Amino acid sequence: MFEKRNTRTEISSLGEFGLIKRLTKDIPINNPSTVKGIGDDAAVMDFKGRLVLSSQDLLVEGVHFDLTYFPLKHLGYKAAVVNISDIYAMNGVPTQLTAGIAVSNRFAVEALEEIYDGMKLACKKYNVDFVGGDTTASPHGLFLSVSILGETENPVYRSGAKENDLLCVSGDLGGAYMGLLLLEREKQAYKANPDMQPDLSGYDYLLERQLKPEARADIQKLLHDAGVKPTAMIDISDGLASEILHLCTESKTGCNLYEEKIPLDIKTGELAKEFNIAPAVAALSGGEDYELLFTVDQKDYEAVKAIAEISIIGHMTDIGNSANLVSKDGVVAPLTAQGWDALLNKEPQDNNNADNKNEE
Amino acid sequence: MFEKRNTRTEISSLGEFGLIKRLTKDIPINNPSTVKGIGDDAAVMDFKGRLVLSSQDLLVEGVHFDLTYFPLKHLGYKAAVVNISDIYAMNGVPTQLTAGIAVSNRFAVEALEEIYDGMKLACKKYNVDFVGGDTTASPHGLFLSVSILGETENPVYRSGAKENDLLCVSGDLGGAYMGLLLLEREKQAYKANPDMQPDLSGYDYLLERQLKPEARADIQKLLHDAGVKPTAMIDISDGLASEILHLCTESKTGCNLYEEKIPLDIKTGELAKEFNIAPAVAALSGGEDYELLFTVDQKDYEAVKAIAEISIIGHMTDIGNSANLVSKDGVVAPLTAQGWDALLNKEPQDNNNADNKNEE
Repeated sequence: MFEKRNTRTEISSLGEFGLIKRLTKDIPINNPSTVKGIGDDAAVMDFKGRLVLSSQDLLVEGVHFDLTYFPLKHLGYKAAVVNISDIYAMNGVPTQLTAGIAVSNRFAVEALEEIYDGMKLACKKYNVDFVGGDTTASPHGLFLSVSILGETENPVYRSGAKENDLLCVSGDLGGAYMGLLLLEREKQAYKANPDMQPDLSGYDYLLERQLKPEARADIQKLLHDAGVKPTAMIDISDGLASEILHLCTESKTGCNLYEEKIPLDIKTGELAKEFNIAPAVAALSGGEDYELLFTVDQKDYEAVKAIAEISIIGHMTDIGNSANLVSKDGVVAPLTAQGWDALLNKEPQDNNNADNKNEE
Repeated sequence: MFEKRNTRTEISSLGEFGLIKRLTKDIPINNPSTVKGIGDDAAVMDFKGRLVLSSQDLLVEGVHFDLTYFPLKHLGYKAAVVNISDIYAMNGVPTQLTAGIAVSNRFAVEALEEIYDGMKLACKKYNVDFVGGDTTASPHGLFLSVSILGETENPVYRSGAKENDLLCVSGDLGGAYMGLLLLEREKQAYKANPDMQPDLSGYDYLLERQLKPEARADIQKLLHDAGVKPTAMIDISDGLASEILHLCTESKTGCNLYEEKIPLDIKTGELAKEFNIAPAVAALSGGEDYELLFTVDQKDYEAVKAIAEISIIGHMTDIGNSANLVSKDGVVAPLTAQGWDALLNKEPQDNNNADNKNEE
């Protein structure tokens, strides 16, 4: 997982235009909506009457990632995926991506190529066209800014949830956060003793959730095939608690979330125990899972329940009610965006729900 | 021009969502193509069959701007304008903008508000909707990443110039660069003697070109009204020489550019003399003028000549010819993206062309 680079070409040896040429050669165009990709003042798209979706996310070294354990190719992949996920969260299909990268002179051309390779790989996997970019110097560190376009016929907003709608989530939660804790622990151990080998065996799934997350391209089709249209949707970047609060605020509803219904991978549960935190905390406050959180009408209960990739974790309530977490022992407490406060001092327990493993 | 701030609210006192709420309140929607602006996973647009344009630019502290003399509101304005200019350079109309900002903790909420105010002001002036953004921490300095969408019926690419087409440019060139040299000189003087007052009087135009540039919203209509369709177009961000080379490369042509035809403001000429550089150097290599460089068919000579805002500065040639600069004394030399080498040691002369002042 920790890549090595063997050659080092100074960026200054290529110049700005030489660098762009090298980074952007062989970038294919796959979407019919892409008229003109990289190489002009702007890309040109033709969406032929479909609605266009646009989003942007920044990833900053030392804030969102630590290059001592985050391979650059993975970083490029993740930067693309977090944006692609935003388009799925609107019930859309991602179509075009542009990327801005600022790097200090500690990075060589090969480092930029790895980031681009990761972005290209994600674009290929999700059928997105890489149509523009800006590469520039930075006095300190690495900054990645990705913008994404997508299209949809039926956008699903955060604001559409109604009282009694079912609250649903795809996949399992908290894995990306436990992967991060694991990487941080091994980094500290390595700093204390550089001769040691990082002990990451058995945790491939959690590491992949952190280092190479995937966006839920499949949920739209699963719901469509089941005849279900979500009423509100958001993706999980900041943690389940924070995203639920967004849905409640925008939809003007309350909510009851059942702790025991939160889907957790068995490894998430095991490692949470090692770190002496309640597994639900990783799901509620960890973030970066890039699963889809959405609401559906109660009449769709059977249809949604039949989809293995989806868990029903609660229901929306009147706005007079707050957004609540109902614990396993039935204690009702207001959900907070931090989540930590309520659960951090709680002893971890056996987690019967930690078997919904979602390997993709 | 040098603003002062009197209050300081720590970003941490608002939290991420409080900050976003404060920054994005009162952001209007003006374009019919904007269906949903800030506040969801993505913005939603409906371009009703028109072509969509997309571009992205990064501005990095210490690389693209120096906050010792660059007011934050101006910075936000400029970040928006450089992107808006990319859309005009495609023969388009800018419609939506998203912005990513990463700041270190030396910046207060008020600093972010000033940046946003500048972006909002530019959006208002150019009738662009501010539809999304991402605000995050940075370990060092300030990073601004703006993405823009626009629409067009007839995109004009860099690749459409033909042999014998006339090479044209809007406004005057080199002013932004001379403004930068002036600000840098006063900064050095201030560092040597902090009691001094910066001497910037009489140079309002050059300072405005650097600190508050405008994009050429007017050229499209002027050409359209004159019945002229440009064959190729680009905006001047890196300097005239570099942009001409882009047009030649993409259009597979050569070019003759006449030094004496390059439009220069009289103040640009005066200050260039003070700095002992040829005024044309500021135009060729300075950049950041955000004027439009374009080619038109020879038959449009009279129509273009009649437009005061446009100068004809040369013509395209066969690709067998290189891109050349023809100096005032008739010397023909290949144009280089640096430009400096050819002209730096040349004595500045009276510049008869330095009267095409374009105050906007």
